[in-house]
Amino acid sequence: MNIGFIGLGNMGSPMAINLLNAGHHLTVFDIVEASVHQVAEQYPQRVKASASPKALAQAELDLIMTMLPASAHVRSVYLGPDGIFANCSSKTALIDSSTIDPQTSRDLAKVAQDQQMVILDAPVSGGTAGAQAGTLTFMVGGDEQQYLRFKDILSLMGKNIVYCGGSGNGQVAKVVNNMLLGISMMGTAEAMSLGVSLGMDPKTLAGIINTSSGRCWSSDTYNPFPGVLENVPSSRGYSGGFGADLMLKDLGLATEAAKAAQQPVPLGSLAQQIYQTFSLQGKGHLDFSAIIQLFQKQ
Amino acid sequence: MNIGFIGLGNMGSPMAINLLNAGHHLTVFDIVEASVHQVAEQYPQRVKASASPKALAQAELDLIMTMLPASAHVRSVYLGPDGIFANCSSKTALIDSSTIDPQTSRDLAKVAQDQQMVILDAPVSGGTAGAQAGTLTFMVGGDEQQYLRFKDILSLMGKNIVYCGGSGNGQVAKVVNNMLLGISMMGTAEAMSLGVSLGMDPKTLAGIINTSSGRCWSSDTYNPFPGVLENVPSSRGYSGGFGADLMLKDLGLATEAAKAAQQPVPLGSLAQQIYQTFSLQGKGHLDFSAIIQLFQKQ
Amino acid sequence: MNIGFIGLGNMGSPMAINLLNAGHHLTVFDIVEASVHQVAEQYPQRVKASASPKALAQAELDLIMTMLPASAHVRSVYLGPDGIFANCSSKTALIDSSTIDPQTSRDLAKVAQDQQMVILDAPVSGGTAGAQAGTLTFMVGGDEQQYLRFKDILSLMGKNIVYCGGSGNGQVAKVVNNMLLGISMMGTAEAMSLGVSLGMDPKTLAGIINTSSGRCWSSDTYNPFPGVLENVPSSRGYSGGFGADLMLKDLGLATEAAKAAQQPVPLGSLAQQIYQTFSLQGKGHLDFSAIIQLFQKQ
Amino acid sequence: MNIGFIGLGNMGSPMAINLLNAGHHLTVFDIVEASVHQVAEQYPQRVKASASPKALAQAELDLIMTMLPASAHVRSVYLGPDGIFANCSSKTALIDSSTIDPQTSRDLAKVAQDQQMVILDAPVSGGTAGAQAGTLTFMVGGDEQQYLRFKDILSLMGKNIVYCGGSGNGQVAKVVNNMLLGISMMGTAEAMSLGVSLGMDPKTLAGIINTSSGRCWSSDTYNPFPGVLENVPSSRGYSGGFGADLMLKDLGLATEAAKAAQQPVPLGSLAQQIYQTFSLQGKGHLDFSAIIQLFQKQ
Repeated sequence: MNIGFIGLGNMGSPMAINLLNAGHHLTVFDIVEASVHQVAEQYPQRVKASASPKALAQAELDLIMTMLPASAHVRSVYLGPDGIFANCSSKTALIDSSTIDPQTSRDLAKVAQDQQMVILDAPVSGGTAGAQAGTLTFMVGGDEQQYLRFKDILSLMGKNIVYCGGSGNGQVAKVVNNMLLGISMMGTAEAMSLGVSLGMDPKTLAGIINTSSGRCWSSDTYNPFPGVLENVPSSRGYSGGFGADLMLKDLGLATEAAKAAQQPVPLGSLAQQIYQTFSLQGKGHLDFSAIIQLFQKQ
Repeated sequence: MNIGFIGLGNMGSPMAINLLNAGHHLTVFDIVEASVHQVAEQYPQRVKASASPKALAQAELDLIMTMLPASAHVRSVYLGPDGIFANCSSKTALIDSSTIDPQTSRDLAKVAQDQQMVILDAPVSGGTAGAQAGTLTFMVGGDEQQYLRFKDILSLMGKNIVYCGGSGNGQVAKVVNNMLLGISMMGTAEAMSLGVSLGMDPKTLAGIINTSSGRCWSSDTYNPFPGVLENVPSSRGYSGGFGADLMLKDLGLATEAAKAAQQPVPLGSLAQQIYQTFSLQGKGHLDFSAIIQLFQKQ
Repeated sequence: MNIGFIGLGNMGSPMAINLLNAGHHLTVFDIVEASVHQVAEQYPQRVKASASPKALAQAELDLIMTMLPASAHVRSVYLGPDGIFANCSSKTALIDSSTIDPQTSRDLAKVAQDQQMVILDAPVSGGTAGAQAGTLTFMVGGDEQQYLRFKDILSLMGKNIVYCGGSGNGQVAKVVNNMLLGISMMGTAEAMSLGVSLGMDPKTLAGIINTSSGRCWSSDTYNPFPGVLENVPSSRGYSGGFGADLMLKDLGLATEAAKAAQQPVPLGSLAQQIYQTFSLQGKGHLDFSAIIQLFQKQ
Repeated sequence: MNIGFIGLGNMGSPMAINLLNAGHHLTVFDIVEASVHQVAEQYPQRVKASASPKALAQAELDLIMTMLPASAHVRSVYLGPDGIFANCSSKTALIDSSTIDPQTSRDLAKVAQDQQMVILDAPVSGGTAGAQAGTLTFMVGGDEQQYLRFKDILSLMGKNIVYCGGSGNGQVAKVVNNMLLGISMMGTAEAMSLGVSLGMDPKTLAGIINTSSGRCWSSDTYNPFPGVLENVPSSRGYSGGFGADLMLKDLGLATEAAKAAQQPVPLGSLAQQIYQTFSLQGKGHLDFSAIIQLFQKQ
């Protein structure tokens, strides 16, 4: 299949390479030329570099995937006279894997519908490790038939390809899940720090929580207390993993969506503020489980 | 074995009955006489009523268990001239299953040690349903040999008998687990309400969360959104289960212990305040998952 | 002076009438025709109704004032082919008194600068009562010479005309002041409720706070506890005044601006969430001091 | 008058010296002997050192004042066989100026009443500077006649002697005022940091707030932003003033009292948690306005 790919950052590059590994041809664009070269040099015969999103959109591809940092980039790549919608045949399907606010995804879907084009929102979770291993989770919003049509392609980059309902619902699922993740990570950090400071052994405490009603992914799979689990960021100085600043971004998307929906999210919002405080102290590059440092003497 | 049992409330009564079911003899006390009669009439030949904690303490029993509502009751039953410590042989072992602050448990353990007596703190989780079914979890603090000695007795009332370390650690484990539970329940309530109000189907959303990093006991076993799971309080009008006011009590114990330990618990503390607000609105008798009502139009 | 006025709602109408009272001629527009008629019928000889913002912009006025509910309205009135900027002579000065996010005000100022036009952001505080009495406070951002040039005009509608610095700073001052107001109102509500429930007389307590370090506008001028002050909303069932939903809007602007500026605002953000909860309970139409109801048995 | 004084710390010493300056005779006790000597050596003829609270209680004094760090000290000095109540003539009046939880003050008042003794709770605000200058505020709870009887004595140490109602109300007024102070200081810190980071001059911003509805003691008298006011801790590196750890203690008293009264205090509680976080970062010795450092890049 001839696939366009816009956005070759830490996540996009390994995703693109997994498509190439499966034999597909890619036409790629990124504003950082070095990123383009890095992907191209591995499969020189099946990668074409494009000069702009507009040029890429005009290349009559079967599918264009986009993986961009934030809503502003997505709007600029899709909309306006130089954007994908203005320059693309309706035969080209579109999948946006950026994590952005649901409303923007729904705005794009409206434009697509008006032009009789197909677009899916398909944000991912699993981090750079998951992108490299091809084990991402894709949360997909849009028409269910189109989801079924592209499930195999997404499976080249991910392990779980989950249908979430109409346009924007992929974003909703992502943002809501990550808000709960931020809350439970912070709760786990508070709970572990408190228990240990009250005299418990951290592994014993984690063991009890993990077989009790406090159990959560943050306690049993990604425990923030150093030494409780091996092979997680807390046991290697909070390097690798999912950056605190990325969690901050997702919490920002969640509270923004909550404001628009007139929904209270007091814990989600407090988690956002505490991650913002942590980021201001210069810790945003650490894995998000490092938030436990706010609850421990340094 | 001759066992004393003080405190025959909603939890204590079924626990005492499970000991009787196993063939033990009980000497019991409760300030509500009706509770004593209710237990006694089921096993008239193996239940003696005692006139006071003092009389019970003087009865030369093998073990005294206590199951009381709060620290003040525990102090009054154990300490002072009419308390257990002043009137009890050192041959009688003591197990307190009340949920109280760890410091009080440690104060009692200090008194016990000075009198060469044995005491374990062994708070439970599992609610009245677990107490009746004999499937409680006991979190035990104190000497490990004594834990091993009484594990079989506790197993008559519970399924998991977990050793948590020195005196008070049973309370620490309980209070820390329940703080995390309160946080993740409230997080789940915010997340489910937000996702549904942004257009997702509640079962689909729960399904995604439960296979993702937001997964927690509150989402996969006790989901607060009506209709997502069967046989949980949210699907029967939030009746039964673990009362919001009990969660409020445990969050109060957690923040009090955190204050003493000079540990920040911002989310735990906010959860406490929101449960307090909910209780003030007359909702404290509902199951604690009913907190989701604060995030939904009523 | 020939002045255009767009937006004749609860605030805009009395502001426009104060300009008319001072003898100015007005060309007005509002999407609600009845509002236009209401203003016009009082001064039939000095009020012209305009068919659209575009028509009004083309009318070669000395000054156009706008008073609109939110950023989206402001963008739609100012930008695009039918907006003020595209249809207005550079001789017409512009003053936007809407309360919106500072970034939008700065975006408009950038457009104005490119067209060599003058725009001031001049949001107000003081509510409908202040608008009627002509005692509003104007917080003005933009060029200082232009501020001085229009100070007299603004003084017809307000008592304090404060210069805040460059473009957008009027909005910053407004949003930051109101965030602090929301926080201190909620703090006062918590403090008064707690003190009274602990046995103090509310007037005695307010008297002590107002001569101590807890003193704030919310305690000494607008106390939320019923009966402490006369002639404030708390003493007339929380009617009149500054609506809780307007406070919610301003807290939303503050946290949004904080997110963009990467600034933590934990109390501001919690205040927003609690006002959102209050609004969800159907109380958003009450004066914002009614938030004290969340801290009292109803 | 013959006055006993127990507790000669940073606050108690200058208070005792003000009583001596006025010509009174003092019998003093402190566990730190150096503190006793320091006071005694200034007025060798009018200061007697006592060996214990018990000895002091037996000295047939007209009045005993106590100024102790926390409830535990107060209980130990007043209660038990070696305490004041067990050893003191009913002719000796008692005034406790410690800042403690209202319930402990009320417990002491109950004991006093049973022994037909007089006790007032009279916590102070104004810090060590106020203690030295004799300009403290005393918030007095207890019998009004007794308040009037001792007002002149208290006036030797303070400027405002405020009657707050029955026993414990002095503590309630203190703790409630300081909770509101903690909230508004943190709110001011957030607001000033946000406004400046959005481009405003700090003095201009403070000026606007101080004439608007955000006005509070923390903004107009004790502004936390460096350089806005002279002669406040923020303009001398946050030295002197009222320590962050003392604010943390008072917020802890407030939330504890709120828990007992079943009152929600969400902002008070969040302020406590954030001061706890600040303290854990080793900043508890700074003036409490230094909390603004959490909202600024360091």
